[in-house]
Amino acid sequence: MDRSAPVIWWCRRDLRVDDNPSLLAALQSSPNLIPVFIWAPEEEGQFQPGRFSRWWTKQSVALFQRLLGRLGSRLIIRRCSDTAQCITQVVAETGAKAVYFNHLYDPISLVRDHEVKTALAKLGVECRSFNSDLLYEPWELLDSAGEPFTSFETFWNRTLAMPYPPPFPLPAPHQLPPVSPNIDSTPLEKVDWFQTPEQEASCDQLRFKWKPGVEGAVEKLESFLTNRLTSFEADRAKVDRDSTSQLSPWIHIGTISVRYIFYRVCQQQAEWAAAASSPLVPPQALPSITNSCKDFLQQMGYREYSRYLSFHFPFITERALLAHLRACPWRLDQAAFKAWRQGQTGYPLVDAAMRQLSSTGWCHNRMRVVAASFMVKNLLLPWQWGLKHYWDAQLDADLECDALGWQYVSGGMADAHPFNHIIDLEKEAQRFDADGEYVRRWLPVLSRMPTQHIHAPWRAPHAVLAAADVELGFDYPERVVTAEESARNMAEACHVLQHCQASGSSD
Amino acid sequence: MDRSAPVIWWCRRDLRVDDNPSLLAALQSSPNLIPVFIWAPEEEGQFQPGRFSRWWTKQSVALFQRLLGRLGSRLIIRRCSDTAQCITQVVAETGAKAVYFNHLYDPISLVRDHEVKTALAKLGVECRSFNSDLLYEPWELLDSAGEPFTSFETFWNRTLAMPYPPPFPLPAPHQLPPVSPNIDSTPLEKVDWFQTPEQEASCDQLRFKWKPGVEGAVEKLESFLTNRLTSFEADRAKVDRDSTSQLSPWIHIGTISVRYIFYRVCQQQAEWAAAASSPLVPPQALPSITNSCKDFLQQMGYREYSRYLSFHFPFITERALLAHLRACPWRLDQAAFKAWRQGQTGYPLVDAAMRQLSSTGWCHNRMRVVAASFMVKNLLLPWQWGLKHYWDAQLDADLECDALGWQYVSGGMADAHPFNHIIDLEKEAQRFDADGEYVRRWLPVLSRMPTQHIHAPWRAPHAVLAAADVELGFDYPERVVTAEESARNMAEACHVLQHCQASGSSD
Ligand SMILES: Cc1cc2nc3c(=O)[nH]c(=O)nc-3n(C[C@H](O)[C@H](O)[C@H](O)COP(=O)(O)OP(=O)(O)OC[C@H]3O[C@@H](n4cnc5c(N)ncnc54)[C@H](O)[C@@H]3O)c2cc1C
Ligand SMILES: Cc1cc2nc3c(=O)[nH]c(=O)nc-3n(C[C@H](O)[C@H](O)[C@H](O)COP(=O)(O)OP(=O)(O)OC[C@H]3O[C@@H](n4cnc5c(N)ncnc54)[C@H](O)[C@@H]3O)c2cc1C
Ligand SMILES: Nc1ncnc2c1ncn2[C@@H]1O[C@H](COP(=O)(O)O)[C@@H](O)[C@H]1O
Ligand SMILES: Nc1ncnc2c1ncn2[C@@H]1O[C@H](COP(=O)(O)O)[C@@H](O)[C@H]1O
Repeated sequence: MDRSAPVIWWCRRDLRVDDNPSLLAALQSSPNLIPVFIWAPEEEGQFQPGRFSRWWTKQSVALFQRLLGRLGSRLIIRRCSDTAQCITQVVAETGAKAVYFNHLYDPISLVRDHEVKTALAKLGVECRSFNSDLLYEPWELLDSAGEPFTSFETFWNRTLAMPYPPPFPLPAPHQLPPVSPNIDSTPLEKVDWFQTPEQEASCDQLRFKWKPGVEGAVEKLESFLTNRLTSFEADRAKVDRDSTSQLSPWIHIGTISVRYIFYRVCQQQAEWAAAASSPLVPPQALPSITNSCKDFLQQMGYREYSRYLSFHFPFITERALLAHLRACPWRLDQAAFKAWRQGQTGYPLVDAAMRQLSSTGWCHNRMRVVAASFMVKNLLLPWQWGLKHYWDAQLDADLECDALGWQYVSGGMADAHPFNHIIDLEKEAQRFDADGEYVRRWLPVLSRMPTQHIHAPWRAPHAVLAAADVELGFDYPERVVTAEESARNMAEACHVLQHCQASGSSD
Repeated sequence: MDRSAPVIWWCRRDLRVDDNPSLLAALQSSPNLIPVFIWAPEEEGQFQPGRFSRWWTKQSVALFQRLLGRLGSRLIIRRCSDTAQCITQVVAETGAKAVYFNHLYDPISLVRDHEVKTALAKLGVECRSFNSDLLYEPWELLDSAGEPFTSFETFWNRTLAMPYPPPFPLPAPHQLPPVSPNIDSTPLEKVDWFQTPEQEASCDQLRFKWKPGVEGAVEKLESFLTNRLTSFEADRAKVDRDSTSQLSPWIHIGTISVRYIFYRVCQQQAEWAAAASSPLVPPQALPSITNSCKDFLQQMGYREYSRYLSFHFPFITERALLAHLRACPWRLDQAAFKAWRQGQTGYPLVDAAMRQLSSTGWCHNRMRVVAASFMVKNLLLPWQWGLKHYWDAQLDADLECDALGWQYVSGGMADAHPFNHIIDLEKEAQRFDADGEYVRRWLPVLSRMPTQHIHAPWRAPHAVLAAADVELGFDYPERVVTAEESARNMAEACHVLQHCQASGSSD
């Protein structure tokens, strides 16, 4: 084949030039590389991006386009409603001999990639795809009988015990070939990233809190490694401080590589182990640091596992979420839903979580669990309503992770609590926000509540409320539902649910 | 005189062993030193400490007591209602030959110190006092005619141009003499620092935000020098970040010395000037750094000036505050006052400031000005009500600084705006919180308001409010008063005020 014929490098959620195997392979196959980004949100139906996710995509693509420009190339952006049709169009325009891209694993992408490959095959255009998102290929991680693992624990243990290390992050090319100016690209500002101008305006504050692109990702990672990784084991469940990495938005869009993160953590751990050999650092400090690194990598491991399962058991993410809850007798209380969304339930931990999520697009996994659980099990609101709100609010909206989270929260996994288990919010608060500082951060009006009363202001003596200048119902709302009401409502719902299950009317 | 007879070292708002001239002088005069702290809040009448100030005093005394213990000494704490009587009691019990202490400058302390000196003189006990709180003695700062300066600008210029430097902070002794176990001291936990247990409980959150004692002060200072001093000139007016030092609580209680701060800043400036000689740093970076250091020292200079004036013109702080406003026809609107206190006026900048002050005991000088001004001039509420709230809420409550602030805000100083000038809140917001991040921090419910609307949500189109999930009156209050109403109310009040002044019925 003509070695100089162009190749298309199809960029999706791998908006980086570091550790990008499809990019390097494309460069080796042709001196004529055309990077292409296709924006077709309608194609994703109900799971097309929410507003914060759209903001993140727009910003990330803008920075990526600029990066490619600095390297001598040019990102071709196409706005369309059908990706396969769009990419065959670009192939025809450019005379490309091949399309190179990295894998995505969510069911929508799997279907779309299949369509693209089929369309290109008909045109005699080579299609090559690579893994840029996993430590090992799924077929490298098998048990001694050659079968896939079926539990996270065995899967992860095997990952860590492989006889040879995972691929090292690949280097970035120093230069990219120029792209013909004749190839049309939609100017970034002309792309309708948002559904309305007001939707875009409501994302205004994100720019003060998040720094998209590879630079922001590396900054965030290094800050985490320097300041928090050593105490991750002890602190990761504490929501009253920045205890975790907050890398999920960049990981999702692929501006930073999970393999790069993996190796930076291993490298950092090795440095700490070396420092621990010095006479000033006693050996007992080291296990805690080691455990913290292992613990953090295990958080990354949950993400690995979700994609591993989608290879070996594709059905696990293709089915509708929480199907067995379809028969649940939800209370379609709009006022309660609004209180939940606005963080006005009267439960400080839930309200703080919802305000953080709405304000910043992110909150700690524990808080996502607490708020989602409250919404489903205390308010008995349809999980679809909450999912929509999260999907719209989350900056890191990711179908596989989101599915995992909701299934875990709602009792859809074997090792989770069953559906009828209602979280004890005050116990959760004691575990995750023992000092009450998370609540004070997001509900400043409760600042002067003593710690012992801050998570249950409805139980505080009047003198305490007066000294704290808090008037329930004025400064802070009364509870939208009491614990007793929740328990009673759950009992009724379970009764109906069990009855339906017994009759086999739900699948 | 018997050289070994004890001397009493009377500790007040100089709770440190570094740069403490009365301490070193006492050590040189006797090997038998007795440190004494007297707690007599009622003596201070209407200006006895507010709750946050009580918390700060308790914590600072506890740490100071511990520090003296580590140095081999013991702090004698006495709870009483009359300081002069109390200290003569200690003198009698101990056979002390002298009492050494450092100056305080507020009128209450001046009267009290005079009474103490008189009482001790009658007993033939020497009384020696020192300056530990000023860069220069007031009599060293005179104009060429030997008269005191009467403007801050000339006062401060002279301070910086003195031919010899101010006293260098004195070193701390490595050890202190033991104190006889026979001298009674009220155990720290038995002292009634607060008026009610609920008042104490409402200070619970302060321990997460403030670190009392000399260690906390040094940490705060060094953090400021390292991270913010270089950009102080450009950033000090920005309230959406930690732009200033936040040292006022420690400076007030004397756990850190202003002379130490002065020299650390000068030292840091010299280091930056030296670094600026390196070829990597162009000369143009230096002026901004130099100006920042000068600017910061000038903030300290306002504090110096207030005490300078109290020496040369003692009347300036002894008179009642805002006397000429006594005839003002205040609107005694309790609901408006509550909205102001709780940060629910409907004006985001004011509400954010009040929530920060209530939550943490501190807010930026600009915000104290904005909120105080709104309370007096927009709501026409009596300044005494606001003062009480500030005094209760401020961690750094300091009579001289507070007086200066209220006089400046309320038009009581010649170079301030006149009383009838109403701050344009939106212009203030543009100057001090241009990105709206301060408001988002303290009013999370407004997070998704676009920056252009966040300071005036009442003017935002409905679509913007909807996209931001903000319902005025539900999520965030309507305005307690409009700008037009404020202007009208002020005009009426000024009319009455002028009439009263014309008739000479107010002084
Ligand atoms: C109801 C619900 C919905 C969720 N939706 C999403 C989503 O849309 N996008 C998303 O990235 N995460 C989602 N999560 C998982 C988790 O909450 C976030 O990944 C995590 O909070 C991100 O913060 P971090 O980067 O500081 O995490 P760290 O603790 O620092 O973890 C590092 C990385 O590991 C991965 N990770 C950590 N925890 C999990 C987990 N439980 N499941 C899968 N991956 C994990 C993420 O990529 C994360 O960035 C959801 C969880 C729940 C309970
Ligand atoms: C209505 C009103 C009331 C005030 N009440 C007090 C009070 O009770 N106690 C108090 O310490 N300050 C008071 N201030 C002054 C000022 O607001 C605080 O000193 C300052 O905000 C403290 O923050 P900082 O340490 O970060 O200041 P920086 O800008 O870092 O200044 C460093 C230090 O200089 C001194 N200083 C700075 N500005 C002033 C000023 N305008 N007047 C006097 N000293 C100043 C303080 O000791 C301060 O810690 C008041 C101001 C106003 C308008
Ligand atoms: N067996 C599992 N399979 C998938 N996800 C899990 C599993 N166990 C825990 N998780 C997720 O990881 C988070 C932290 O769990 P843990 O590591 O037990 O603290 C949970 O909140 C879940 O989101
Ligand atoms: N002439 C003055 N005398 C006393 N305090 C002043 C004077 N000018 C300004 N201030 C105080 O210093 C603060 C900052 O003023 P400025 O240095 O002009 O930005 C003001 O908000 C006042 O609190």
